[in-house]
Amino acid sequence: MTASTHPRIQPVDRALEPALRARVDGKAKPPGSLGRIEDLAVQLGLIRNSLAPKVERVVLLVFAGDHGLTEEGVSRYPASVTAAMVATFLAGRASVNAFAAAAGVEVRVVDAGVAADLPAHPDLIAAKIRAGTRNATREPALTRMEVDTALARGAELAASAIMAGADAIAIGEMGIGNTASAALIMHRLAPAALDECVGAGAGQDEAGMVRKRAALARAASRSAATHPHEVLSEFGGCEIVMMAGAVLGAAAQRRPILVDGFIASAAALAAIRLEGAARDYCVFAHRSAERGHARLLEAVDAQPLLALDMRLGEGTGAVLAAPLLRAAARLLSDVADLSEVVPA
Amino acid sequence: MTASTHPRIQPVDRALEPALRARVDGKAKPPGSLGRIEDLAVQLGLIRNSLAPKVERVVLLVFAGDHGLTEEGVSRYPASVTAAMVATFLAGRASVNAFAAAAGVEVRVVDAGVAADLPAHPDLIAAKIRAGTRNATREPALTRMEVDTALARGAELAASAIMAGADAIAIGEMGIGNTASAALIMHRLAPAALDECVGAGAGQDEAGMVRKRAALARAASRSAATHPHEVLSEFGGCEIVMMAGAVLGAAAQRRPILVDGFIASAAALAAIRLEGAARDYCVFAHRSAERGHARLLEAVDAQPLLALDMRLGEGTGAVLAAPLLRAAARLLSDVADLSEVVPA
Repeated sequence: MTASTHPRIQPVDRALEPALRARVDGKAKPPGSLGRIEDLAVQLGLIRNSLAPKVERVVLLVFAGDHGLTEEGVSRYPASVTAAMVATFLAGRASVNAFAAAAGVEVRVVDAGVAADLPAHPDLIAAKIRAGTRNATREPALTRMEVDTALARGAELAASAIMAGADAIAIGEMGIGNTASAALIMHRLAPAALDECVGAGAGQDEAGMVRKRAALARAASRSAATHPHEVLSEFGGCEIVMMAGAVLGAAAQRRPILVDGFIASAAALAAIRLEGAARDYCVFAHRSAERGHARLLEAVDAQPLLALDMRLGEGTGAVLAAPLLRAAARLLSDVADLSEVVPA
Repeated sequence: MTASTHPRIQPVDRALEPALRARVDGKAKPPGSLGRIEDLAVQLGLIRNSLAPKVERVVLLVFAGDHGLTEEGVSRYPASVTAAMVATFLAGRASVNAFAAAAGVEVRVVDAGVAADLPAHPDLIAAKIRAGTRNATREPALTRMEVDTALARGAELAASAIMAGADAIAIGEMGIGNTASAALIMHRLAPAALDECVGAGAGQDEAGMVRKRAALARAASRSAATHPHEVLSEFGGCEIVMMAGAVLGAAAQRRPILVDGFIASAAALAAIRLEGAARDYCVFAHRSAERGHARLLEAVDAQPLLALDMRLGEGTGAVLAAPLLRAAARLLSDVADLSEVVPA
């Protein structure tokens, strides 16, 4: 077993916090009157270690991967839908493309581990770890080395997007069966009782939920892993591990990460358990309707910016929060001080 | 007394609702998985009477006006701040300018009734009804004719913005003392006990709250008005009545109206009490931290899209919801059907 090679993260320097608070309070508005946007502005200033951080370009990385767990009937949809949705992302015709256009966010699609040979496409980043994970009810979903590779690739992709001009990274995903994988990761890393972590995903019916719970109980009973690296290996999946890597990669570059819903949050949780300081850089975008998300958010002490009863993933929640992040940055950078408006 | 000349509003035609629901459900995503954005898409389709409505250009009209009630010490800030903030809007340096830039919304500033001669500015719409309202503790804030003029001008301004290409209108305001005026309007039109309607506004302290409650009780005791037109005349203010007119003007053009916080909601309430069908066209953007807003929203059966603990006004909440409105439109117009992605 090699030592994991993921980036080490420095916490933000809280020494700047009083100056950031004073700057927000000194703006031409009643103190506190912009509520959560003020808190976001302070977080952003700490992340960038600046009194006037800039957030304009937000790049969403959508990581796609398949799951051996689908063999157990954990999802209502066949695994082939993952590849079909990747094609839809690339055609610009998925929900996340529409939402990203609405919010001015750029979308990049990453083949993290789709169980199909995807045709080359100029907008597709080929980063496949393997063609779908192994079936976690029977064996580890990923080897330790596959986890290392996925973490490193995710970190590199975030760093590349930042080098190319992204001020913030958003993470989203597509992968039939990935609420199952995320539930297992949450179970071990929140930690929380498995039952609290399992939800209907893309819309399981009651019989499907019985199958899903039983399969996850079998997978959980196979391994007692609690170390985050080991948990990711046992329960996968490629897109989740790569998202965790992207969180670490963006945090290492001191950039904010907009975290989408349940699955992206499970990835952020893994990143935070690997490197506690990564929490400082995460902005949780949306409280998903998926069962388990509220409890997962508690485990990382997060109150998402939005609550729109969505449960699609893809990054739909993350991109809708991008304008809020920009607004917080502009509050610090663009808004006049009260003393300029009403001279004492 | 002349008959009011505000636009009459037709309700949306609900015959299209099943087709809109079917269209949303047929998109390449699990049914219901986009939660409130799906409901918003249906509302938008009904407003535009179209299965593929377009919302790109959103124009925020910020209405500014002063209040005779400030003579009673209802606000923590002097009335002169209204004019100072108008200058800040025009300089592009207020919170709402920053947020509008973040969300891609255009801002127009309207002098509805500022108690100062404002210097001409290419971006200022001069539509002053009078230089501040009369003191509503002593006499009606506005004459019936002033109310008519304000409603008509507000409607014209919304219609002009739409003629110039706006797909949706957002309404916001600035006016020292206007939570006091809004509280009185809400009290009579929600209706609700006056105490439920009175909050700290821009940040009144306890002594200020005692003054504010006493002044509003005096104003309320002066008139038993419950008809919306009469209530607007008794309690003002210019910017609130003009916002109500803008709601009616945009609704008459079958365009969505993004309603900001407490004061804009009081204006929308007045518009709805004048023309019940106006409700169909209103999208309530943000649940303000101002006391009274939750109850006011109940009165119009609204659940705002956002809840960010803001209480500034200016249109800050409305503009942050603009990307959600665009996303809802694009869900209908841009997203592939499931049958295109996964052939049966």
